[in-house]
Formats: sequence, C-alpha cells, structure tokens
Amino acid sequence: MRVINFNAGPAGLPLPALERARDELLDFQGSGMSIMEHSHRGKEYDAVHTEAISLLTELLGIPDTHQVLFLTGGASQQFAQVPMNFLPPGASADYILTGVWSEKAHEEAVTVGKARVAASTALPDKRHVRIPRQEELQLDPKAAYVHLTSNNTIYGTQWHSWPDVGEVPLVADMSSDFLWKPTDVSRFAFIYAGAQKNLGPSGVLIAVARKDLIARGRKDIPKIFRYSTHAENNSLYNTPPTLAIYLCRNVLAWVKGVGGLPRLERWNREKGELLYGTIDKHTGFYRGPVEKESRSYMNVVFTLPTPELDERFVAEAKKAGMVGLKGYRTVGGIRVSTYNAVTVDNVKTLVSFMEEFVRKNG
Amino acid sequence: MRVINFNAGPAGLPLPALERARDELLDFQGSGMSIMEHSHRGKEYDAVHTEAISLLTELLGIPDTHQVLFLTGGASQQFAQVPMNFLPPGASADYILTGVWSEKAHEEAVTVGKARVAASTALPDKRHVRIPRQEELQLDPKAAYVHLTSNNTIYGTQWHSWPDVGEVPLVADMSSDFLWKPTDVSRFAFIYAGAQKNLGPSGVLIAVARKDLIARGRKDIPKIFRYSTHAENNSLYNTPPTLAIYLCRNVLAWVKGVGGLPRLERWNREKGELLYGTIDKHTGFYRGPVEKESRSYMNVVFTLPTPELDERFVAEAKKAGMVGLKGYRTVGGIRVSTYNAVTVDNVKTLVSFMEEFVRKNG
Repeated sequence: MRVINFNAGPAGLPLPALERARDELLDFQGSGMSIMEHSHRGKEYDAVHTEAISLLTELLGIPDTHQVLFLTGGASQQFAQVPMNFLPPGASADYILTGVWSEKAHEEAVTVGKARVAASTALPDKRHVRIPRQEELQLDPKAAYVHLTSNNTIYGTQWHSWPDVGEVPLVADMSSDFLWKPTDVSRFAFIYAGAQKNLGPSGVLIAVARKDLIARGRKDIPKIFRYSTHAENNSLYNTPPTLAIYLCRNVLAWVKGVGGLPRLERWNREKGELLYGTIDKHTGFYRGPVEKESRSYMNVVFTLPTPELDERFVAEAKKAGMVGLKGYRTVGGIRVSTYNAVTVDNVKTLVSFMEEFVRKNG
Repeated sequence: MRVINFNAGPAGLPLPALERARDELLDFQGSGMSIMEHSHRGKEYDAVHTEAISLLTELLGIPDTHQVLFLTGGASQQFAQVPMNFLPPGASADYILTGVWSEKAHEEAVTVGKARVAASTALPDKRHVRIPRQEELQLDPKAAYVHLTSNNTIYGTQWHSWPDVGEVPLVADMSSDFLWKPTDVSRFAFIYAGAQKNLGPSGVLIAVARKDLIARGRKDIPKIFRYSTHAENNSLYNTPPTLAIYLCRNVLAWVKGVGGLPRLERWNREKGELLYGTIDKHTGFYRGPVEKESRSYMNVVFTLPTPELDERFVAEAKKAGMVGLKGYRTVGGIRVSTYNAVTVDNVKTLVSFMEEFVRKNG
C-alpha cells in the first residue's frame, strides 16, 4: 500500500516509472542481467543513455546551442564546479540570494574566486519570503555570470519571470523545480538540477549547458571537473551512475506519456491553486509567510497557530496516509512539496484533510 | 533467465541482493514508498546508511582510527580529490604506475600539484604485465603520500603484498578488488573504491580514511571537496546517492551471510586457479601475458592465437550464456572478470567451454 508522499526530496516518483524498474530489475529487456549490471559502454545501456538525453531534449525543446550533461555530486558540487569552470582569476560573478541554497552556492563560490552579492532577500531573522524585483538587482555588467536559484525549497518561493541580466550568462540551480513547466532554455547559459525532486533518485545531476560557454571554460582545473570533459564524451568520460540515469529515463518517458511539460504545468498550477486557495480561505489558521507573487508551485509552506498544532497536523496527516509534511528542520511549520509525481487527487485529499483540521482545531 | 556475467564493471551483483531490492522497490519495509523516495534524513534511510557502514566496518575489521565515507564521482573524481586534500603547495606526492588507471590518477594529480613517478611498469608498447618489486620503487621519504592502484582491470595485474613506504601515508585505489579478501586497513591512509565491481551499482564511491589525515586535509579548497566535510557529517553533508548506498547495503549483507571476506577469498582464489590452470595447461593456445606473481584474481586476461579466434571465443561463449568476455577496447583479447558475485560454478562452466574450444580450434 503506497502512501501519499509530500517529501521535499528525495521525493516521490511516478509509480509507472518505478513499476517498470521493478519488473525488469533482474533481467533488462531479456538481456539476462539488470540494467545496473550492464557495461556503460554496451549497446543496452547506451540506448537508455541516448533515450534519456533525447527525451529531455524533446520535452524541454533544448536548442542545438545547448547540450545535456549527466554529472554527479548533487547541486552542492555544482556550487563549486560552476565557478571553477566559469570564474577565471580576476573576474567576478554575481549571486542573487533568495534562500539557503543560493547562500550556500555563494559561500562556495567565494572559496574559488570573487563572487558578489547582486541582491539578497534575507530578512533580519535570515528568512526569505519573496523573490527580488528587477530594480533591486545590483548587477555588474562585466560579471562572468549571474547565478540564481529558481525555486527555494525551504522558504517556498519561486521565480515566475526571469531577471534581465543583459549579455551576462545566466546560471540557474533548478534542482527543485526543473521540468515543472515548459522553460525557455535559450535564456540560460547553464542550468543544473539534482534529479531527486522531479526526475529520479538522488545520485545524478542533470545540466543543460550552452556549448560555446563550456568549451571556453577554464582548463587549469582537474580534468574531471571541466564541463568540457563531460561534454566531449557525451557524459561517458568515466562510468556514469547508470541505474540513476535509467530511472530518470523511466520518469522522462512517463512525462512524455502523460502529455509533456504543458500538461505537468497545468497539473502543478492546479495543485498550487488548491493549496494556496485553502490557505487564503483560512488566513487566521493557516499562515503562508510568502509574498503572493513569489509563491512556489513546488513547495507550499505555511504555519498553524502554534507549534503544537503543526505537530498534530503532521501526525494526523500521517495517520491518514500522507507523509513528508514537516517543514525544514531550521524553519519548522508545514511544507507540502508538490513535485511532478504528486497528483491533483493527492492534493485534493490533503485539502480535504486541511478543511477538516481547521474545523476541528480552528 | 539470467546469464553468466563476466563484465569488468559495472559488473554482476549477487542475485539475492537484487531480489531483495526488487521485492521492496515500491514499498520499503511497509513504509508505503521506495527507499529512493525516502528522505535521506528520515529514520528509514538512516537505518540503511548506518547498517551499510557497520557491515563494512565489521567485514573489513576497520579500526577506530579510520572512517567509512560515501562519496560520488567515481575513482576518476578521487584522482583529483586526493591531491586536492592531501597535497599542499610545495609538497610532492609519489605515484606508482601499474596501468591505465594509475596513469590517469597521476595525470590528474599533476593538474593539482607536484606528483612524481616513483615507479612505472610500462613496457615500450605502453602495456603493463607485472607489479613492481620493492627495490624498483624510488620513493621520496618526504612525499605527502604514495598512491597505488591495487588491481589493474585492463592488464590483469594485482598487488599481492603491499610495498613498504615507511612513514609516508599510503593511498590506494581499490576500485576493482575492494573486498576480494580480508585486508589490513591500518596499513592505508586512504582507500577508495567505486562500487561498481564488488559492491553495488555505479554512482557511489566508498572511502576508508584515516581520521587524523582527513582532519588535517587542506581547507583552501571548496567545502564539498574536503573529506573533512563528509567525515564530520557522516556522509550526509548533502543528499547522498541513497539508492546506490541501499544496494551496497544489500550486497554487504549478502557478503556477511555467505561467510564474510575469508569465504570470498577462498572462492576468488579457487576461481583464479581454475582459470590460470586452464591457461597454463594450454600455453600454446591461451596466452596469459601477465607475470605469474602479478596475476589478478579479479581480471584474468589472455589472448588466443589470432584476433579472429578471440572474436569467435567471445561469440560462442555468448551463445552458451556467458557475456562480458571481450578484452578492454585498447588491448583486445579476452578478459574474464571474476568479481565476488561470479560463482565458482560460473567459472567451472567457462573452464569447460575453454577446454571444448581448444579441442575444436587448437
């Protein structure tokens, strides 16, 4: 019996993608072995690798100027690898700080080179409740790149229109909202996303990179950390995380099967509207700290009147078959993560529970 | 119908470890979700993580001076990360070159700092067919560390007694023979091994590190690349590859169940003796290039009288249900990888095939 999984990541995955993995876990397509036992240079794995890239290219409409890379180490490794590749000595990069993860990205960039803060939405108590407006950005027109975090899992904020950064390359950590809707990839020089929200298990990171930019990347760093190494070898320079990429392929095939990113966007917006509608209907009970224009459609955060009620909410939801609702350890409250695998029906079940909870405790 | 899998890596895994994964892939221990859908900070995954570390500690007899780390990026990333941590400016490290992978480790170390070649067994044609003797090692007593590759997958050589490196920390890439037999961990400052041979799927790397050495590691590198970061956070600094670690746990539980490393060593030696015995019996037909004292018990390499016979051998073995026998792309011939999941019976089947093949073609 599967529960309704609102985990913030690693997150729930579409059941058909998991069933497909289970059914062929011991014998992949009659080959007599698991996909994870196949050589990464054999034709069976190669077909999976190629299909994962072509599905992603098709779904996102990735132009020829860009290339898909499979990397490892999660977004946290990219916090270092991005400046190692794109921030030469003497240059400076701009960071827009909208939460813990963009702050960590900036802190790590400082270990590599010069990284400015172009804007920060941090409140005096360190929380973030909104995305900055264009006029707040103090951008350096000579910056090597501008870095932003497209969705902030902890605070529940999300960029809904991209900033104008002129000719400066735009780099985005999209770990927590990659593939939530159609995205104009051509606006970005480098997109990176850990798989474990919308795409697959932890252990693989997807990058969508502008080819000219990665070719010009720094060469005075170890070969394994150069994006050009992975680009030139189609992400097969060394053994990639084959099982994780295979699972991403299964998820991408599911995305295509249900109707692609326009369909996911419709579902994701419906899920968000159901939840925010319920919060706004009971503002005295459910308190959403996030500015309306900055609300995330992936992580809906709110608090109840007391920490005790927060706890009771989580405990009773769990009894009702819904898990993963506890807010991030440093901020408390409730967090409903509504990644692509969470269905509209799952959210309707939660919304009914929220209505019932406010009736009993409001 | 499972085939007999002699792949060099990613390699075959023990069937019980895979069956366990399949049986609970949609619902891990009644939790209503897959292990890959669990939070890496939840109690379900934490129990798996802890068990994987304690099984490895028990099986290898890891002393309190050392700590297990789960890292990513494969051995190729360690080629850079080892010198980043342990090779300060002005210092020098010693590399013993016994094959392609130790050469790559050395090449990458040179991008970080000063790395000497303490010995190389490369022949004029670049092949390696043996492990160097102690008296061949030109060790620098002031070296930051000495690096070796314990088993050479491509050339089929393996260290059978560790070199005396005095007080200099010994670092070993054990990717292709980790856990093949009991190993005195205390002799090593840092052991690293990609999982995809003896331990699990690709996508996770296991390190066994001397605690004092990693605590003293360089701090002027990005935080994500410091071993101390991962040591201080029990390999949970950022989201680890949870599914891959879970599969390693399954394999480690299987190792313990069959009798631990002494049992694996007995099986591995029997497998090697069966294969080398057959080669030595038909020296005019099967030619093993490796010096006897340096023969690997993980990768048995040999050639047949002609490349056409090599090809026929691989093709007919495949028809007989045995795959993964083709030699490495740059060296040709036959390679039989006999990692822990390959049974003595699997090897007996191959040996019968080899006898039959020599009768028909010799």
